[in-house]
Amino acid sequence: MAKIIGTSLPNIPWQDRPEGCTDVVWRYSNNPIVPRNAIPCANSIFNSAVVPYEGEFAGVFRVDDKRREMRIHSAHSKDGMHWDIDPEPFNLLNPIANEVGGFVYGYDPRCCKIGDEWVVTWCNCYHGPTIGVATTKDFKTYYQKENAFLPFNRNGVMFPEKINGNYAMLSRPSDNGHTPFGDIYYSESPDLCYWGKHRYVMGTKGGWQSTKIGAGPIPIKTDEGWLLFYHGVLTSCNGFVYSFGACLLDLEKPWKVIYRTEPYLLSPQMPYEQIGDVPNVAFPCAALTDADTGRIAIYYGGADTVICMAFCKVDEVVDFIKKNSKV
Amino acid sequence: MAKIIGTSLPNIPWQDRPEGCTDVVWRYSNNPIVPRNAIPCANSIFNSAVVPYEGEFAGVFRVDDKRREMRIHSAHSKDGMHWDIDPEPFNLLNPIANEVGGFVYGYDPRCCKIGDEWVVTWCNCYHGPTIGVATTKDFKTYYQKENAFLPFNRNGVMFPEKINGNYAMLSRPSDNGHTPFGDIYYSESPDLCYWGKHRYVMGTKGGWQSTKIGAGPIPIKTDEGWLLFYHGVLTSCNGFVYSFGACLLDLEKPWKVIYRTEPYLLSPQMPYEQIGDVPNVAFPCAALTDADTGRIAIYYGGADTVICMAFCKVDEVVDFIKKNSKV
Amino acid sequence: MAKIIGTSLPNIPWQDRPEGCTDVVWRYSNNPIVPRNAIPCANSIFNSAVVPYEGEFAGVFRVDDKRREMRIHSAHSKDGMHWDIDPEPFNLLNPIANEVGGFVYGYDPRCCKIGDEWVVTWCNCYHGPTIGVATTKDFKTYYQKENAFLPFNRNGVMFPEKINGNYAMLSRPSDNGHTPFGDIYYSESPDLCYWGKHRYVMGTKGGWQSTKIGAGPIPIKTDEGWLLFYHGVLTSCNGFVYSFGACLLDLEKPWKVIYRTEPYLLSPQMPYEQIGDVPNVAFPCAALTDADTGRIAIYYGGADTVICMAFCKVDEVVDFIKKNSKV
Amino acid sequence: MAKIIGTSLPNIPWQDRPEGCTDVVWRYSNNPIVPRNAIPCANSIFNSAVVPYEGEFAGVFRVDDKRREMRIHSAHSKDGMHWDIDPEPFNLLNPIANEVGGFVYGYDPRCCKIGDEWVVTWCNCYHGPTIGVATTKDFKTYYQKENAFLPFNRNGVMFPEKINGNYAMLSRPSDNGHTPFGDIYYSESPDLCYWGKHRYVMGTKGGWQSTKIGAGPIPIKTDEGWLLFYHGVLTSCNGFVYSFGACLLDLEKPWKVIYRTEPYLLSPQMPYEQIGDVPNVAFPCAALTDADTGRIAIYYGGADTVICMAFCKVDEVVDFIKKNSKV
Amino acid sequence: MAKIIGTSLPNIPWQDRPEGCTDVVWRYSNNPIVPRNAIPCANSIFNSAVVPYEGEFAGVFRVDDKRREMRIHSAHSKDGMHWDIDPEPFNLLNPIANEVGGFVYGYDPRCCKIGDEWVVTWCNCYHGPTIGVATTKDFKTYYQKENAFLPFNRNGVMFPEKINGNYAMLSRPSDNGHTPFGDIYYSESPDLCYWGKHRYVMGTKGGWQSTKIGAGPIPIKTDEGWLLFYHGVLTSCNGFVYSFGACLLDLEKPWKVIYRTEPYLLSPQMPYEQIGDVPNVAFPCAALTDADTGRIAIYYGGADTVICMAFCKVDEVVDFIKKNSKV
Amino acid sequence: MAKIIGTSLPNIPWQDRPEGCTDVVWRYSNNPIVPRNAIPCANSIFNSAVVPYEGEFAGVFRVDDKRREMRIHSAHSKDGMHWDIDPEPFNLLNPIANEVGGFVYGYDPRCCKIGDEWVVTWCNCYHGPTIGVATTKDFKTYYQKENAFLPFNRNGVMFPEKINGNYAMLSRPSDNGHTPFGDIYYSESPDLCYWGKHRYVMGTKGGWQSTKIGAGPIPIKTDEGWLLFYHGVLTSCNGFVYSFGACLLDLEKPWKVIYRTEPYLLSPQMPYEQIGDVPNVAFPCAALTDADTGRIAIYYGGADTVICMAFCKVDEVVDFIKKNSKV
Repeated sequence: MAKIIGTSLPNIPWQDRPEGCTDVVWRYSNNPIVPRNAIPCANSIFNSAVVPYEGEFAGVFRVDDKRREMRIHSAHSKDGMHWDIDPEPFNLLNPIANEVGGFVYGYDPRCCKIGDEWVVTWCNCYHGPTIGVATTKDFKTYYQKENAFLPFNRNGVMFPEKINGNYAMLSRPSDNGHTPFGDIYYSESPDLCYWGKHRYVMGTKGGWQSTKIGAGPIPIKTDEGWLLFYHGVLTSCNGFVYSFGACLLDLEKPWKVIYRTEPYLLSPQMPYEQIGDVPNVAFPCAALTDADTGRIAIYYGGADTVICMAFCKVDEVVDFIKKNSKV
Repeated sequence: MAKIIGTSLPNIPWQDRPEGCTDVVWRYSNNPIVPRNAIPCANSIFNSAVVPYEGEFAGVFRVDDKRREMRIHSAHSKDGMHWDIDPEPFNLLNPIANEVGGFVYGYDPRCCKIGDEWVVTWCNCYHGPTIGVATTKDFKTYYQKENAFLPFNRNGVMFPEKINGNYAMLSRPSDNGHTPFGDIYYSESPDLCYWGKHRYVMGTKGGWQSTKIGAGPIPIKTDEGWLLFYHGVLTSCNGFVYSFGACLLDLEKPWKVIYRTEPYLLSPQMPYEQIGDVPNVAFPCAALTDADTGRIAIYYGGADTVICMAFCKVDEVVDFIKKNSKV
Repeated sequence: MAKIIGTSLPNIPWQDRPEGCTDVVWRYSNNPIVPRNAIPCANSIFNSAVVPYEGEFAGVFRVDDKRREMRIHSAHSKDGMHWDIDPEPFNLLNPIANEVGGFVYGYDPRCCKIGDEWVVTWCNCYHGPTIGVATTKDFKTYYQKENAFLPFNRNGVMFPEKINGNYAMLSRPSDNGHTPFGDIYYSESPDLCYWGKHRYVMGTKGGWQSTKIGAGPIPIKTDEGWLLFYHGVLTSCNGFVYSFGACLLDLEKPWKVIYRTEPYLLSPQMPYEQIGDVPNVAFPCAALTDADTGRIAIYYGGADTVICMAFCKVDEVVDFIKKNSKV
Repeated sequence: MAKIIGTSLPNIPWQDRPEGCTDVVWRYSNNPIVPRNAIPCANSIFNSAVVPYEGEFAGVFRVDDKRREMRIHSAHSKDGMHWDIDPEPFNLLNPIANEVGGFVYGYDPRCCKIGDEWVVTWCNCYHGPTIGVATTKDFKTYYQKENAFLPFNRNGVMFPEKINGNYAMLSRPSDNGHTPFGDIYYSESPDLCYWGKHRYVMGTKGGWQSTKIGAGPIPIKTDEGWLLFYHGVLTSCNGFVYSFGACLLDLEKPWKVIYRTEPYLLSPQMPYEQIGDVPNVAFPCAALTDADTGRIAIYYGGADTVICMAFCKVDEVVDFIKKNSKV
Repeated sequence: MAKIIGTSLPNIPWQDRPEGCTDVVWRYSNNPIVPRNAIPCANSIFNSAVVPYEGEFAGVFRVDDKRREMRIHSAHSKDGMHWDIDPEPFNLLNPIANEVGGFVYGYDPRCCKIGDEWVVTWCNCYHGPTIGVATTKDFKTYYQKENAFLPFNRNGVMFPEKINGNYAMLSRPSDNGHTPFGDIYYSESPDLCYWGKHRYVMGTKGGWQSTKIGAGPIPIKTDEGWLLFYHGVLTSCNGFVYSFGACLLDLEKPWKVIYRTEPYLLSPQMPYEQIGDVPNVAFPCAALTDADTGRIAIYYGGADTVICMAFCKVDEVVDFIKKNSKV
Repeated sequence: MAKIIGTSLPNIPWQDRPEGCTDVVWRYSNNPIVPRNAIPCANSIFNSAVVPYEGEFAGVFRVDDKRREMRIHSAHSKDGMHWDIDPEPFNLLNPIANEVGGFVYGYDPRCCKIGDEWVVTWCNCYHGPTIGVATTKDFKTYYQKENAFLPFNRNGVMFPEKINGNYAMLSRPSDNGHTPFGDIYYSESPDLCYWGKHRYVMGTKGGWQSTKIGAGPIPIKTDEGWLLFYHGVLTSCNGFVYSFGACLLDLEKPWKVIYRTEPYLLSPQMPYEQIGDVPNVAFPCAALTDADTGRIAIYYGGADTVICMAFCKVDEVVDFIKKNSKV
């Protein structure tokens, strides 16, 4: 019975599995938790990061405004389900802006607590998409670091502790458009400035994950390995379909995949996942965990339009991965 | 007044045309008849074949599982509308598997009674899609024959009797992806092993059938010719749209088209056709007929996700084809 | 406070802004006003033109029939919201048909009163899409002129008065498919036969208008410039998304853009805009205006399937454009 | 025996058909007549126009400079074979440059004497390629007119006299890249400012002219019709191949094709046509004619790199067209 | 030391390996043996088949005429190097032409003696490319059979004897354009009418054979297996490059590959292979063999323009294949 | 008068500018200096690096073998023009091969002396192209470092001294195919293991450098800035054309471009540049310099097939860059 290696989160947002449901991951019945127009400037709010913060919850949210420009906003919540979103984009301090220029666009943020601060990573435009990095201690001011990599890259996801003495990040090298390929790689950094020791982690497989894959929430440490939820994309004759599954990575050498789900855990089957600015998308970016109960609350974007939640329990999901694995 | 040349099917599933409706083909009011998750492993169930069997009904169903791998399952029903689907894929015996390898994927099955057995055809992966062929007498065990053609081919549809002393099949040569072209051809075989005498039947035309077309249910023998329902595809700026129409083929030389509908008979206009894994798809794969009443019950896939039904009467549909024909 | 320079239209169709709504342009609560199947032959009815006519309203409607062929039909309405559509395509007299051939297809009509007649323009097939032109005085008989331009062109929109002594038209040069580019140009003609003095007006920008743009309704004369609603297209990984915004053009030199909305005014967010033959389309083709009240009623196509309405007031919309402009 | 309707040109550059050669059009043995580096700034010189001028010859030459920017230069020659090319681009006076901007790029010029002046047309960048027009009387100063058409257009070729009282031009509507399609159209203008009465002339056919076609030299008036040399493009798996053939157009209604060569007259078979900046190109832009002898000297670009010449006689070429025609 | 299992051909055209050359396959020093314009109608002559015939040699040649239409011509030679090509296309009798239409285009012929007649196969247009089949006994009259397969197919190459009692053919399923994929398959027929028992033989590999492959000359029977020369295609940034290598197939089950060259045997490195209608093509279609000496004379097309020859010895080439094999 | 800041190289290979030539960069009259088949396994030898070594010259050469697999070989020369190439690929020791796998392919090497060792960089396959790094002191054994970046990247070019205390490299982020885009970036590393501080240097411009650009030889230090030769690519309708130009980068902040040639310095105009495995390529990878005389000898690949040389003088080339610059 797999266990989360981590802290308690007694107030984790939660809803029990519906009666009759046998799925390992189940949706929240009041999805979406954040509608597309939650703040006046918003065209859509989705693919966002959430963490526990001072007994409540803080978030770093993707907000596409009515120009359809991609921005990141801070957000706060008492219960993890009802959110106050800052009407203005996040306050990003960039000491080298005169060298590299200021914020152009940013999307699909992740947020990872390491030590006493949070590292926020996102897809950051620097003459093309790459991985932007910033730290914050208060979700008010964000201190931008050097971009982790050269363009073109997306889905940079930090590990919540140092690996082999280094910061560690997963990412998905891409191209300059709607990339029709994409594998997950692992990189390390001694200082959040220089990155190297790049390792291939895993690539596409058949079915729901046949076009490209990318890391989702911050990996969850368990006694069986790092539990990583990740999205996979299938190309139908009418476009991409984004679902998500999970894998277990080696605790010491996280670029080694131990188990990996052959079936998806959740695919776009509800109207809020099937209809919107990009139909047929379920895209996980964050998870909350309670080590005491093994509960996991997943935040995912629906149809590139709204924020949704789903739930699972660590023992069940690890058990499912192991029983349905094809590495 | 066209008549079906065939057998009685007094228990044909049926629903009268709704009041006020003037369409030649009308939908079942309780569509879809099979939801996407009817069995635990299923992501979706659609584009499936149905035949009368021992006073009830048997089916050979396309089931895409949660890996998004394409499988075929047997199914049974008392009334043709409520179905018990075998939770396991069909039992396919392949005596030459050591030469050609085993089952890789199969989809869009058709089922045709010839003599005292049923010939099932489907899109079968053999280093690319081609037409798989098997026979069954009990819908429990299926004996695989040689693939009918070289790759790349889809939509292989048998005639329900020999033509010129040979087995006869329609098919749609394709390429190795989401083929953006496709015409219907006719081929003959003396033995279900070797195929030849390939004849071009018909190609794309404007509007709803401008990108590609493919045979649907087993052709229905009438005194005016073979009645063939077929799908047609239009390419919008947001992807393919699958509708269906019908044509009449010469009884003796079925590669000669006598009449062909210029308008479609049914296009995706209901939510279960417009929303799903592939939006905007209505794809017919089977039809039941009652020679006594001229009733025809059509089974078609909705949005590559669910199974739906529609109804028509042979005299009306033949009359419509003739009055709205452009060959 | 911007004012419309034009005539009164006391019976302009209208619905006040819903309570709580802060949008500059708001939707009609009974959208769509014309369903896809309003006449028997219709697959869909959308992207249509409307004008005041003899105290009531006349229309020139795009009707795609069940062959999915594109036709134009006359229509009449007492209130601008409930429409009688001629079941037959419009009666188009073409004196040079023996030179250039007859009507092949026509779509996305606009209608502009100049003097005592109406000039109808549409995307007209002449060995490819170009701008067809016809005049009518009664919406019964239409007299076709020479095509304005060589192929390939779409979205030809007349100015409602002569500019510099010439007829004037906006258009969007294109290619022969689902053109992935497109800017707005301006041209003049002394006689509706020969056209020249082509001027570039404006091109794509970021976000919702990053792939192509095209003029919408006939420009509305205001004391601050020509008010032009125009559509813009964003290419998502699952296809085009059509929204609309507005700009102000110089009254004397309408190819000079004074202000232009950086955010959209309306994007596809309702089911009738998100679901249909082409998901995610809001495409404006006509507007009625009342100079007395500044009311504007916009007609736009939803999902290339139905006709919808939205409303705004000239002072608010001009104010919004000026405050949210990026030329 | 077809005859040229035109003037004498006793000093037409000429070389007799080589012995043993049976081709209707034969190459000059000293090709290329202009090498790629004839002037210091030049990367390549090709696809150029030549006319008789004051007893000698004048030219308007395409010169791609070493930036690979496309420019047009004046040129002069005593014998039509040895050329002095102005080292600077042509002096183009554009009275509306403040409206439309100045010269951006220009290529593939043609030059047509009408009355006592020459009309030069070329592919002119105005937010995309369209047809630039200028007049000159001295090949020193060129007075720019309005662009004839909206983008996207190429290969604008004037008729050497008015047709139906109007200026007349052939052109080839295109798109914004390496257009993979293209037919020839005809347009008229009363004043070289406004253009209309657009007529489709002819499109692609099989073989060497299956991808796109475009008018070449100024049409040559003969008693059998307008003799038009035109290029045709075939798409091989390694790119475009440009050859040329000819057709006869009706003298009164030049949009009506009377005869058209099914075989090409000349295809790239010599190293200076097969090797260069664009391999496998033979692209005719000008022809000199002598009505007395029926001699025709064709100027064509080789491999988008050099200027070449070929020769033929009007009676033979018209005879060949008629005997090898497929309209 | 591998030996050819076959007949003597003492007059096989031959040239010894040049001094200093260590290549297993070497070119003829007087290449090309047939120039592009060998007959008046020809644009190019290449990719052609050659067989011993009545003590001399007969050929079935691909001739693209000056329309760039693809035709097949008979040819005769005393020495296999100097050829008389029939100026007219081959005389093809097609008893079912009223069913399937007549000859549209044909290219890349192969010619195989089986029993006392020759079977000619070629890429034959029947609503797309497929494999045409005809027999001849005199190279004057050819009797057309049914097309072997449905479109789309190319490079149909017969085995020179029956396998398992059936006629046997290799082919390369394709699509309707410049197919960017392609593997070799094997099929059998009891009667040259119906074909089946399709088997995958081999697909692309890295390097020179990474885009597609196709069988070349008729397989040569040796005591080590069927020796098959085949072409492979690499896609450079400037188009396809066609080279050729060889493999050994199992004598009994020719769909089983025993050995296969990892390096090519010959790639386009001479001007007549690098320059022409399609640069960088060396495409083998025929081979003559002398069982007594083990000599093999290969005929291959250069640059889709001319016919070339190369030579090798069976023992050396088999040895090379075995030593440089990667199956 | 610009001067090289560096060492003497009295034996620099050299040939004076030909009489009459006014080009800033001129070709060696005996090009190519290395033919395609210089060693038995080679299909082609090109795009290679050369450095002074122990009074003579050493090289790291790209050799594509007859499988068309890309390998790197050591080479030595007494005069820099006649080369002995090691018949075996270079001896690359990779201590982490068990983590990342061994050598898959490598191409387009550069070689840079820093301190007392040479750093070799190349396009290295690690699940896609990225920048491989190795050091050598003897051109016999190469010690592989971590790949500098994540895929996809090409044209990694080191600076010959530390910048701001760090190793510095230019590179060109790419995608996984024949990338149709590409700008030059700058990155730093404290240790040749971790890289960061990525800076955009410059992107494409019009003409010869409109598709993509990439750094060529190791930057040459001059008193006016870092002199960087770089290639640029233009996309013709028949594929890519590779030319080269040069720029001057700031000595302290080499990501700042001071001057940049608008014209190219050398484009493919000789047969050995126009004909070969990839026609129309001139691709510089190395340069030798003599600080005493200002002489520069450039090594560049011709047609992806052979190695060529060209020459220039630092004062002239810097002067040309400054006079023909457009940043």
